[in-house]
Amino acid sequence: MVEVVGTAPTSVMFITKFVYRHSWKTNSINIKLLSLDSIILFIMKLTQEQKQEIADQQAQKHETKRVTSVELEKILYEALPVLDHGFVRVVDYMGDDTSIVQSARVSYGKGTKKVSTDEGLIKYLMRHWHSTPFEMCEIKYHVKLPIFIARQWIRHRTANVNEYSARYSILDKEFYVPSKEQLSAQSTSNRQGRGDLITGDQADEVLKILKDDATRTYDNYEKMLNEKFDGTIIDEKKSGLARELARMNLTLNSYTQWYWKTDLLNLLNFLFLRADSHAQYEIRVYAETMLDTVKKWVPITHAAFLDYRVGAVHVSSKGKKIIQQLVKGEKVNYENSGLSKREWNELMAAFEFKEKIV
Amino acid sequence: MVEVVGTAPTSVMFITKFVYRHSWKTNSINIKLLSLDSIILFIMKLTQEQKQEIADQQAQKHETKRVTSVELEKILYEALPVLDHGFVRVVDYMGDDTSIVQSARVSYGKGTKKVSTDEGLIKYLMRHWHSTPFEMCEIKYHVKLPIFIARQWIRHRTANVNEYSARYSILDKEFYVPSKEQLSAQSTSNRQGRGDLITGDQADEVLKILKDDATRTYDNYEKMLNEKFDGTIIDEKKSGLARELARMNLTLNSYTQWYWKTDLLNLLNFLFLRADSHAQYEIRVYAETMLDTVKKWVPITHAAFLDYRVGAVHVSSKGKKIIQQLVKGEKVNYENSGLSKREWNELMAAFEFKEKIV
Amino acid sequence: MVEVVGTAPTSVMFITKFVYRHSWKTNSINIKLLSLDSIILFIMKLTQEQKQEIADQQAQKHETKRVTSVELEKILYEALPVLDHGFVRVVDYMGDDTSIVQSARVSYGKGTKKVSTDEGLIKYLMRHWHSTPFEMCEIKYHVKLPIFIARQWIRHRTANVNEYSARYSILDKEFYVPSKEQLSAQSTSNRQGRGDLITGDQADEVLKILKDDATRTYDNYEKMLNEKFDGTIIDEKKSGLARELARMNLTLNSYTQWYWKTDLLNLLNFLFLRADSHAQYEIRVYAETMLDTVKKWVPITHAAFLDYRVGAVHVSSKGKKIIQQLVKGEKVNYENSGLSKREWNELMAAFEFKEKIV
Amino acid sequence: MVEVVGTAPTSVMFITKFVYRHSWKTNSINIKLLSLDSIILFIMKLTQEQKQEIADQQAQKHETKRVTSVELEKILYEALPVLDHGFVRVVDYMGDDTSIVQSARVSYGKGTKKVSTDEGLIKYLMRHWHSTPFEMCEIKYHVKLPIFIARQWIRHRTANVNEYSARYSILDKEFYVPSKEQLSAQSTSNRQGRGDLITGDQADEVLKILKDDATRTYDNYEKMLNEKFDGTIIDEKKSGLARELARMNLTLNSYTQWYWKTDLLNLLNFLFLRADSHAQYEIRVYAETMLDTVKKWVPITHAAFLDYRVGAVHVSSKGKKIIQQLVKGEKVNYENSGLSKREWNELMAAFEFKEKIV
Repeated sequence: MVEVVGTAPTSVMFITKFVYRHSWKTNSINIKLLSLDSIILFIMKLTQEQKQEIADQQAQKHETKRVTSVELEKILYEALPVLDHGFVRVVDYMGDDTSIVQSARVSYGKGTKKVSTDEGLIKYLMRHWHSTPFEMCEIKYHVKLPIFIARQWIRHRTANVNEYSARYSILDKEFYVPSKEQLSAQSTSNRQGRGDLITGDQADEVLKILKDDATRTYDNYEKMLNEKFDGTIIDEKKSGLARELARMNLTLNSYTQWYWKTDLLNLLNFLFLRADSHAQYEIRVYAETMLDTVKKWVPITHAAFLDYRVGAVHVSSKGKKIIQQLVKGEKVNYENSGLSKREWNELMAAFEFKEKIV
Repeated sequence: MVEVVGTAPTSVMFITKFVYRHSWKTNSINIKLLSLDSIILFIMKLTQEQKQEIADQQAQKHETKRVTSVELEKILYEALPVLDHGFVRVVDYMGDDTSIVQSARVSYGKGTKKVSTDEGLIKYLMRHWHSTPFEMCEIKYHVKLPIFIARQWIRHRTANVNEYSARYSILDKEFYVPSKEQLSAQSTSNRQGRGDLITGDQADEVLKILKDDATRTYDNYEKMLNEKFDGTIIDEKKSGLARELARMNLTLNSYTQWYWKTDLLNLLNFLFLRADSHAQYEIRVYAETMLDTVKKWVPITHAAFLDYRVGAVHVSSKGKKIIQQLVKGEKVNYENSGLSKREWNELMAAFEFKEKIV
Repeated sequence: MVEVVGTAPTSVMFITKFVYRHSWKTNSINIKLLSLDSIILFIMKLTQEQKQEIADQQAQKHETKRVTSVELEKILYEALPVLDHGFVRVVDYMGDDTSIVQSARVSYGKGTKKVSTDEGLIKYLMRHWHSTPFEMCEIKYHVKLPIFIARQWIRHRTANVNEYSARYSILDKEFYVPSKEQLSAQSTSNRQGRGDLITGDQADEVLKILKDDATRTYDNYEKMLNEKFDGTIIDEKKSGLARELARMNLTLNSYTQWYWKTDLLNLLNFLFLRADSHAQYEIRVYAETMLDTVKKWVPITHAAFLDYRVGAVHVSSKGKKIIQQLVKGEKVNYENSGLSKREWNELMAAFEFKEKIV
Repeated sequence: MVEVVGTAPTSVMFITKFVYRHSWKTNSINIKLLSLDSIILFIMKLTQEQKQEIADQQAQKHETKRVTSVELEKILYEALPVLDHGFVRVVDYMGDDTSIVQSARVSYGKGTKKVSTDEGLIKYLMRHWHSTPFEMCEIKYHVKLPIFIARQWIRHRTANVNEYSARYSILDKEFYVPSKEQLSAQSTSNRQGRGDLITGDQADEVLKILKDDATRTYDNYEKMLNEKFDGTIIDEKKSGLARELARMNLTLNSYTQWYWKTDLLNLLNFLFLRADSHAQYEIRVYAETMLDTVKKWVPITHAAFLDYRVGAVHVSSKGKKIIQQLVKGEKVNYENSGLSKREWNELMAAFEFKEKIV
């Protein structure tokens, strides 16, 4: 999987920002120092033709009476790298922060004159769970992602999707292999989470398995197709197996790609679940990249989303009573709380009362 | 309801095109010669402020890298008149014909270079019921329409809606009264259709009832609110009834308005049902106006839609056998067809074999 | 509107339970002492034929291998009265609490043996916003309700609906008139809320207007149709106006009816919004009646819904900091909180810190 | 993949009916004579526990006032075998043919007394594309299927799904290998279809690749997990790789399973597309099995579906003119038709005018 930079005529180097991200809900700082080794993995292969097509789109200049988002226009069509071979591209969008206000008011014009009024209304709508005005903005992405992540993603049904068809075409010879920083053991406390890093020989063995098996199954895919990924026929005297059948031999870390379009409300629902610290890392990095595009597109909505959704705490009816007692200075602890241990700890963790966790 | 043109400072005159429309399915030419009398009904009241807001939006010029639809831009934001006080305005859109091709191909660039290739693919997609590429275009309308029509319209669920709230605001003093050309009796053959025109004294009486009842219930609405439509308080010493209650006194021909946003696929489904000759006239005129905007927006898709949907015939398994026999010159008639009389006639009408209708 | 009990052959008396309901979010006890006068309003008119049809359905006994909800079966098909002429009937259902567990586990069998295990899992799923298992239960209602309430209701799009068609049939001669306890003035603080009661002469006047206008517009509806609600033709020499047109003369408090089917997840979303104290009273009473049917149907889910949704508090990121300071005994007040006055008060009200409201 | 019948304690033999199926659209008889060799492939492995769980459910007898479908009850919970290791089980349902009529009429009772009246209405509704009454029936399936088929299936968004989670659990050691009768070459005329059978050594090689690669990647999956499919730990001193990561090594023919619930309208839409001769064989066999369950459940709707959808022909506006000319005995051929060659042939094939195909 490790590519030697610059040797392949079709490869292109993207230097990704070194970022300090913190996991949302836990608020623990989770510094990602990317080693030189892992940088090398951040390589997307775009062909010369693909690069030219993107450049052509970026060179377009049209005049429009529609509202535009100046910051989002700057990165329109750009392939933002995710994982080792994936990307997210904003391909089109409709509306901006003012469109939310405009439709909430069923306005003949722009809705308001002042940004401050817009902000107040958008915050109000977000706080009180008004949903329909946020549906009035729409965005379309082109995404390249591993199949096992695509299977999680597609569970969000309120979106429009066109996926690259492996019945019709041959898939690219690209598959995801985790960086060593992501090679975690099964969590012992959480059946759907990760625990400590796997290191040393065991890590090397895992990476070797993933690379070898993906490579072998892809080679056999080509063999059954009797055709190489670039269209070369292997044996002119043979017919290849139907593409719709041969694809079943590929592993789930093979990359696929799709156009994915949704409205702002459903995008925020997606990001709330998938940019969360409990989401699998491999989908979270897509969500985080998309969250950056939301910030450029609708900055007021983005800020309200961070305050009222991402950083918010949902307290149950029973939990509310605990908080009330704590504020009044009453003695309350797990034993007399009426909560299960798990619920007690979730509540204390949410408010960062770490000394109260049992 | 009849407005004297030009006297009210808030009224504006739209000259609508005189058009020959033919009802889709029946293919019968249904000429609508609009008399002077009915023209006077085509009056929308827009306040000076509303007119200025629309003009301000139309004056916007932004640069964008997004694809644009030049013809649709020309009428963007314009209030296209429908019925006596209603309108349809295109407020925003995303994508054009090339976006369908681009997403069907999951393309890095524009999809194709040539319009002819685009056309072939769009026709193919429409003919073979491929749906997802047409979902990749989106459009947003601002519509003013009578409540009883809004209730039909909202049954189309795959759309985003923000309606003007009569819990929050006072509705405009406007209600739909049919023109005399539309004052039809109940059909005797079709329980949900119209028959012959009602004329003479009975027509005058119906129009008088509709106007009087709408006016009286609106006046009582203001009285209960203790507030005029323009915000004037009627009796300073009284509290008005809650708006969410007072509205229940209004008649179903009162006008409401909403922002309505949908993708191209679902818009075409809506238009297929609502621009059809079996649809109620009062919603059909909205659908026809919107169909004109589709033609400006995505002309290739519009043409394919006319060929493969609007003008198409759906023949059942049993109907297919009849057609096969007819082509082979075999004697086949209603009695030996195995079809019910109704089905037989529907089939003959669909192919315009009028002499075979029994 | 006031019916003399027992005189009309088609009327039937339902004695509704006197209930102490508390408004959910405000937690203020809101005792509804129903006066004799308002009891008289709780009258649904069911024809003898309708009553017989319901009785016939209730007499059905079928054997099934499907899971059944014993408590819900007891009230199946029964018309539970709501408002003056409305009702809610459970007509069919699929699944129970165990179905949620079964599908969450993708089980070959029942999922679990013990109710306690089911309860633990259902609470966990509700707390962590797992949605899909709750979609695995389905319920179907027959509802009679005023049109202006139907227009709010239909905004919940993820449901299946068949409404009684006024294009096709004549609507019943029934319209909603509020009881005096519900005749509230417009709220001065909340643009979409109710304030103090309207009483005395003004109340009498409002009720008179509502009754007179509904009666007159209905009488004119019959006149234009040339047909009485019971099918009697008024003038044999005339044709009536098409039903699809005549209906526009009816007022928005006319009753309509529909079959409405949805899954448990979307039902709970509906109830969360519509059984809330901020919802309009006239839809809230439907939601409360339906919430009772949910309790009979899926009691474990119902309890989890009350704890984790209805009685829960959603605290924003900024609000969380305030709570943390309050628990630590730090001085924090509106002025130094960084919150707007409205947000501050909403937070204090949510935790019932009434002395802190400014 | 070939199982020796009866030797494994967990295997179970299902004798599937030998059926003459004809491909829908083409109407060509496509006899499937299953050789002994392929019968052996029809083996589902169910554990003793799973078999007991199914038997326990089938032994349930509850009394209900709901409508029941006697024929569907007979096969409720039964695992109907599909492909080599897959199955379809009906787990629950709501409504029957009478429910469609009942909701179309917004009835207080059963809707109608006579089956013949029901049949007439259901046929009318189907013929005229009325959709909402068919949404009033609901069904829930438990399905075991290969992942590459699950990815096609999930594109139908209007359904509820709970899939077995490979983040949480270890997938079964089962993968799909086609029978020799299905080992087709890529079609040369249709980019997403199959052509001639691959036979001889090449066929053996393909089957060997599919089996070896699936077996090896599964073995490595266990090795990375440090755990066998039955829960045995491989090396007590090691931690296994997180399940959410290890699964990426599996091939796309691995079996997954889910609960899938949808309404009758959307089920018919699914079956229309997936039981069609253009659908991939591996999803078509699921659709055909489900179509049989629809016949048991709602036989009147099933018959109408065959007549008005499955066996129907959709004729474009241009195609209609050709048919008109043919019936009138006019000379019309491809050259003067105005159709493309492809469209001409599609039209002639639809009406089985084989001699006119060019």
